[in-house]
Parts: sequence; C-alpha cells; structure tokens
Amino acid sequence: MKFCAPAPENDRPLSATEVALMLDGTLDGDGNHAITGVSELAAAVDDQASYWLPRSSVGGCAAGLVLVPQEAELPEELMTRPARVAVARPDLAAALLAQHFDLARPRWTGVHERAFIDPTATLGEGCTVHAGAWIGPGCKLGAGCEIHPNVVVEAGTLLGIGCTVHANSVLGADGFGYVWSGSKHEKVPQQGCVEVGDGVEIGACTTIDRGTYGVTVIGDGCILDNQVQIGHNCVLGRFVVLCAQVGLAGSTTIGDGAVLGGRAASSGHLHIGAGVRMAGAAVATKDIPDGLTVGGYPAWELTSETRAIARLRRLIRESRS
Amino acid sequence: MKFCAPAPENDRPLSATEVALMLDGTLDGDGNHAITGVSELAAAVDDQASYWLPRSSVGGCAAGLVLVPQEAELPEELMTRPARVAVARPDLAAALLAQHFDLARPRWTGVHERAFIDPTATLGEGCTVHAGAWIGPGCKLGAGCEIHPNVVVEAGTLLGIGCTVHANSVLGADGFGYVWSGSKHEKVPQQGCVEVGDGVEIGACTTIDRGTYGVTVIGDGCILDNQVQIGHNCVLGRFVVLCAQVGLAGSTTIGDGAVLGGRAASSGHLHIGAGVRMAGAAVATKDIPDGLTVGGYPAWELTSETRAIARLRRLIRESRS
Amino acid sequence: MKFCAPAPENDRPLSATEVALMLDGTLDGDGNHAITGVSELAAAVDDQASYWLPRSSVGGCAAGLVLVPQEAELPEELMTRPARVAVARPDLAAALLAQHFDLARPRWTGVHERAFIDPTATLGEGCTVHAGAWIGPGCKLGAGCEIHPNVVVEAGTLLGIGCTVHANSVLGADGFGYVWSGSKHEKVPQQGCVEVGDGVEIGACTTIDRGTYGVTVIGDGCILDNQVQIGHNCVLGRFVVLCAQVGLAGSTTIGDGAVLGGRAASSGHLHIGAGVRMAGAAVATKDIPDGLTVGGYPAWELTSETRAIARLRRLIRESRS
Repeated sequence: MKFCAPAPENDRPLSATEVALMLDGTLDGDGNHAITGVSELAAAVDDQASYWLPRSSVGGCAAGLVLVPQEAELPEELMTRPARVAVARPDLAAALLAQHFDLARPRWTGVHERAFIDPTATLGEGCTVHAGAWIGPGCKLGAGCEIHPNVVVEAGTLLGIGCTVHANSVLGADGFGYVWSGSKHEKVPQQGCVEVGDGVEIGACTTIDRGTYGVTVIGDGCILDNQVQIGHNCVLGRFVVLCAQVGLAGSTTIGDGAVLGGRAASSGHLHIGAGVRMAGAAVATKDIPDGLTVGGYPAWELTSETRAIARLRRLIRESRS
Repeated sequence: MKFCAPAPENDRPLSATEVALMLDGTLDGDGNHAITGVSELAAAVDDQASYWLPRSSVGGCAAGLVLVPQEAELPEELMTRPARVAVARPDLAAALLAQHFDLARPRWTGVHERAFIDPTATLGEGCTVHAGAWIGPGCKLGAGCEIHPNVVVEAGTLLGIGCTVHANSVLGADGFGYVWSGSKHEKVPQQGCVEVGDGVEIGACTTIDRGTYGVTVIGDGCILDNQVQIGHNCVLGRFVVLCAQVGLAGSTTIGDGAVLGGRAASSGHLHIGAGVRMAGAAVATKDIPDGLTVGGYPAWELTSETRAIARLRRLIRESRS
Repeated sequence: MKFCAPAPENDRPLSATEVALMLDGTLDGDGNHAITGVSELAAAVDDQASYWLPRSSVGGCAAGLVLVPQEAELPEELMTRPARVAVARPDLAAALLAQHFDLARPRWTGVHERAFIDPTATLGEGCTVHAGAWIGPGCKLGAGCEIHPNVVVEAGTLLGIGCTVHANSVLGADGFGYVWSGSKHEKVPQQGCVEVGDGVEIGACTTIDRGTYGVTVIGDGCILDNQVQIGHNCVLGRFVVLCAQVGLAGSTTIGDGAVLGGRAASSGHLHIGAGVRMAGAAVATKDIPDGLTVGGYPAWELTSETRAIARLRRLIRESRS
C-alpha cells in the first residue's frame, strides 16, 4: 500500500473561466476569480463554488462562484458574488466540480499488508484494499475497486470495475435456507455466489447473501446505502437505489432505476418494476408494476396510502369532540 | 490454519442407486446414472439431482435425477429424465444430498494466524476461526464451530457444539442499560454474558448483547439471519427462527420453534410462545400465546390484521368515487 | 497493549456502612455485612447488593444488602435481609455501586499491535484500541476512549473524552449523496466529517455517516444502541438516546434529551425537539415540537396513534359478528 500524491492537474485552483469551460456553462462575472473547492451555499467561502436552484434560500451567501440554472431570474444577492456560471443542471455541475477537486485529495492505493487476500482471488489493476478487509477464495475484483477496512468478501464473489464497498459490509455470506426435518433445521448448502456489476457503491454494514444455487446479482451502477440487507438470489437491474436499512427477502427482482426509500422492504419472490419508487418503510408483498410510486404495508399507490392515513386520522380527531 | 482436502467418500459421483439408498427412497430409471451435485429444478443439468413438489413448474427440466414425492402423479416431462427417486420429503432429501456433496468442498480449518484469540479463551476440537475474528477472554467454543472473518465474540461468551457465526457479527457487546442521574446517563455495568446452544447458525452483521446481570440465551438449533438484534437478557428456546433485521428488545423470551418473519420485533419484557409465527415487521407489545400466528403493530391475529388493512383500504377506494 | 490489574481500592469488599457512606444513604441493619458486587433482586446472593422499588416483586430475595427508597414502606421479606440502605434513587445508586465494583475488573488498556492507527491520527491519554480496529488519517480521540475490536473510524473523525464504541461499528463512512446525470448516479464527494462529543457510548454495528460538506454531530453524553444508522449532516444535541435499529435520514437535527425508541426513524431534513419521546418504530416526517411524545407513521401524538389503532381494531371486531 502506498500513499498517492494528488494528481497535479487536480491540485491547483481553477479560474472561473476554467470552471465554466469544464462544465459547459456560461460565465458572468470575474473570469479570473480562483476556486479551490465546492461547498453548500450557506457555508461556501470566497475561493469555493456552490450552486443555487430556484426557490432555494440564499441568505448571506459568500461563495466565490455560484452555479445557476440557465435563463433563471437570479436573486439580487447572487449578483454580488464574484462569478456566476449558468449551466443546465447546477446540482449535477456542482457534483462534477467537487469530483474534480476530490481527485486532488491524497489517498492510499494498493493492498494493505494486513488485508487478507486468498491466493486464488484476483484483483484488477488499481484496486485498493484496506487493512482488515478479507477477500476469499476465487473472488474476482475488477479494476479500480476500493474495499474499505474490515469488509468481508466471501468465496466466489465477483465485483465489476470501479466498485466501492464501505467498511464492515459483507458480500457473499450464506443465504438463509433450511428445511425443517421434524427434529431440526437442516441447512441447504448455499452453493451460489454474488455478482456485482460495474460502478456499484455499497454502504457500511450492508449484507448481500450469495445465491442458494444460482447468483445474487447487483446490476451496474446500483447504489446501496448503509445497513441494507439483500437475501439470496435477489437480482437488481441497473442504477437501482436502495436507501439505508432496506431489506429484500430472497429472490426479489428489481427493474432498472427503481428507488427504494429508507427501510423499504420486499417479502421476497416478487418483482419490483423498473422506475418504481417505494416510500420509506413501504413493504412490497406482491409484484409492483413499472413506474409506480408506492407506500404502506402491503405496498400500494402512495397517494392511496396517504389518503388512507389521513382519513383514519380525521375519523379519530372527529370522534374526540 | 490449513486447507483440508475433501473427504474421499464425499468427493466422487454417486450412482442413482446410491442416492436412493442414502435417502431411503425408491428408484425409478437408470440406477447407474452418475450424480455429482444438487441444483434447482430449472438449472440442474445431467449430472445433478434436483427435487419436484406437486404444483411446481417443470419447464425444460434437464436434471439427471429428480427427487419426487411418494405416490405422486408426476408430470410427463419428469418421466423423460434418466432417474427419479421417490422419497417422503423431496425438499428435505435434496438438502441432505446437497450436504453430502458440500462436504467434498475443500475448506480451511483451524485458527488463522491473524485471528485474535485471548489466551484465556478455549476452543473445542475442530473449530475454524478465520482471519480478523476476535475471541475475547474467557470465551468457550464447543467442538466444530466456524467463526467467519471479523466476527467479534466479546469476553465470557459461550458457544455450543457445531455453531456457525457469519462475518462481522458481534456476540456479547454490552446491553443498553443506563439510569438517568438528572445530569447524565449513568451506565449500568453489563456483567452478564451470552450463552449459545449447540448447532446454532448466526448470520452476518447480527448483534447479540450480553445480559445485564444474568445471561442472554440462544437455544439449541436456533437459526438467525443477517442484521438481527438481540437485546440483553433475551432467552430463546430451541429451534427458533429469526429472519433478517428482526429486533428483540431486552428480556424478551421466546418458546421453542417460534418463527419471526423479517424485521419482526418485540418491545421487550414479554414472552412469545412456542410455535408462534410472526409476520414480517410485526411488533409484539405483550405476551403472545403458544402457536398463534400474528401480524401488525401491536401484533394480533394475522387474520385480523389482514382484515383490518383490507377494510381500511376498501373504505378509501369507495370514498374515491 | 497491557493487562491492567484491578485498582486495589476497587478490588475489596465493602461493608454495608461503607456502601451507605458512598451512596449518601441511611443504613438499617448490620453495618459490617460485606458486599462484593451488585445483581438483580431475584438473583443477588449474600455478598451482593441489589435494589428494590415500590411495586417490584421480592420473591425469595437473598441479597445481603438492599437499596431502598427513603421513607418507603418495605415488604416484610426485605426486613429479613442483613442490611438495607435508604437512598433517594435506588436504581441509580445500584448503578453507581456496580460501577465501583466494575472498576475492579482487570482489563486491557493501550493500543493492540493489530489495531491500525494511521500515523496522522492522534489518541488522547489512556485510550484503548482493540485488535482489528481501524483509525484513519487525521482522526482525533479524546482521553480515555475505548474502541472495540473491528470498529472502523474513517478519516477526519473526532471523538471527545471518554467515548466507547462497540465492536464493528463504522464512524465516518461516506454519506449517501448522488445526482442522477441522465445516464448514471454521479457521486457527490463526501468532504465533511463526524464529530462525537464527550462521554458518548455507541453500540455494535452502528453506522454514522460523515457530513457531505459540513459535520455530522453526536452531542455530549448521547447513547446509541446497536445497528443505529445516522445519515450525513445529522446533528444530535446532548444526552440523546437512540435505541436499537433507529434510522435517521440525512440532516435530521435532534434536541437535548430526546429519546427515540427501537427502530424509530426520521425521513430527514427535519427537527426532533428537545425532550421528545418517540415510540418504537415511529417515523418522523416533519418537525416534532419540544417535549412531545409521538408514535406512528407519520409520527403524531402517541395518544392519538393508540386511539387510532384501537378504533380501527374495534371496527374490525364488530364487523365480524
């Protein structure tokens, strides 16, 4: 493991003109104003950029550069800032600019001597594996993965290119499969594995079980927050979003781009369609069609859930008097 | 730690005749057909066994041997397979056959040099402790336990024979006990411990707190999934099933064979009877009698919960028009 | 790391007279009776103290000393015990007495050679860091912290004096921040950090994310149970209590002394007032005023939630007949 110096091209200030060029935006103001980082609008200082969206409050903004929407009417206060750059999506532009400066942060790369890498595991180029991480037999990690401290990647797990797994998560533990024999729970050996696509980010203390026979799949570009639990043989499409504490029982399948709010869940052996949005703590107990926004337990249209709660509560309030 | 070669008796194909003999079943078809493993019906190939239950779909089954119920009428398609073995419980028989072949999988045994074992801890014969696992002072592990990487077993924890603890779980952390002094939360020192029976399997990122004074008990043959949380002084009977993300507040007691669905919970200081079944996310707030099936929060008969939800939703739907 | 012998002043029996003196109580009975520890009333034996509160059952108490409320009428059975000490708060007095004896327990102090401490991290005097723990670049720990095995403290995290973090928790993992670009989730680099105050105790497998730009704050004297999830930029006041499996979405702020029951949650960007009490599994979806006791999802007055549930269930029961 070695400590990488920042890339020189990322480790210097950018002028407002350079920022506008990088983000394909239109500059208004002082093109020479120097920017060294990004912060939120309320906290940004003179050498930092931030972004503004219509209806955001501006109160006392001190940013040196503000990313703003094209053709929007700007609050007076923003006009006093040294520079504005109009872009199609200010929030996205701010993220990209922050990514640029983030590359200047020095960081460890390589495999720490106190990581455990099984001799039969293979790591792609530029992988970082921190101390205490454990990569089991037959695992394959694509190039540029970062495995945080004390993560456990059990035998046979495959990760694509550029994945990040945060601390203390577990990929490939046994699925929860037993058959009651009449006198004990006989274990169904969990022979399958976990396959994670490219560009996936997995939070801390998250668990993804291996398939019983087949494969548990996390598609390209999925993002999983902390303390998410994925049962055996779940199959997630691409760019699925699972917020913290989501729990998916075995053999749940999820279409591309679905977004599950915090602590949403599936009772298993069902399909959550592409583009579905589940409210926090919603529980899917049957298939959910593509594109639906659902809430409640069992999950149904969120508007119905909201009305049901409102109606029940109105009843109670009326019955008080 | 050393890498064990597979047991020779497990590392060879079985003929269909041998499979029938081992599983106390009745063979129909080619007794010489060779089987090297088990898979699910849809995925099994010519040298693999699988199982069929009435009403399962068969679509394109290519298994070399199918375990089927005694005296069941079989779909045509299964009759074209090389061999069938009729048994009392096909799902159970498949698990036992898979266990046989699973023993052929080479595996590490012993204590990895990067595991931490306190000098006052004792390990039974044939225990496996992986790298990064931590076994504290005074712990006692029965024979044949497997402790996965980065598991933490705090001081004084007892495990029975043949237990498995999956990665990153924590046994014996302090219970959550404080007394508000008027100016701070004074900690109640957690002097108790955790006792785990024989043949218990514990999932990944699960936490079992030590007793405050007495003991937190996990009975023989219990199975706990991932991200389960057990508070101080809980006492689980034998063969209890806790699915993922279950949470038991302190001093919950559970009778033999109860099954708690995913994310079910107890508010503590109550008894969940033997054989109780709790639906996913059900929350017990008072004692639940033996054998009851419950759902909802507070947990009551599941049929009532289902009716309550249905009625409320019908109301809403009617009030739309 | 070295094994500390118990402090001699803690490693000897106390006479009942000494106990009364230490706890500012009034002795009744044998002042010479020797006490070596504390246990619960039902389990305490002749050399142990315990405590009694009005309405507690006494059944077969064998404690050598019982802490009782001042001016309370005591059950006959307690009068047969060797000694009673009347104090203002028996439960608190028992905790303090147990803390005294707990200091006699020998324990490891110092930094284990298999802990990872980044060279740029600084540890206050008397810190204990167990094997497998990971303390990242720029972290600062106040004096007397105890970091249990396999805890991960990511870069830049600050802990105050006398904090305890139980096994396998993660402080300072990235917050969950992305912007959808139209073709992928662009990560918002998580530049902020985590600041933990003095005297904070954090359970096992708990995760506290760093701020996106600013700081995630855990105030002095907070107590967090196991499997708690704190999103980026949350700010907790002093002495907040979070029971197991609580989940706080990003930018939740909590006032001093609030108590969140097991699995309570916040949907983020809202304020939970000082002294608020949230029932188990309650979900705050908007600000909650100081001092309110709430339940349900969305959280409202707990009395209303209880009535709503009761009313719905009565409806169902009536419609049965």
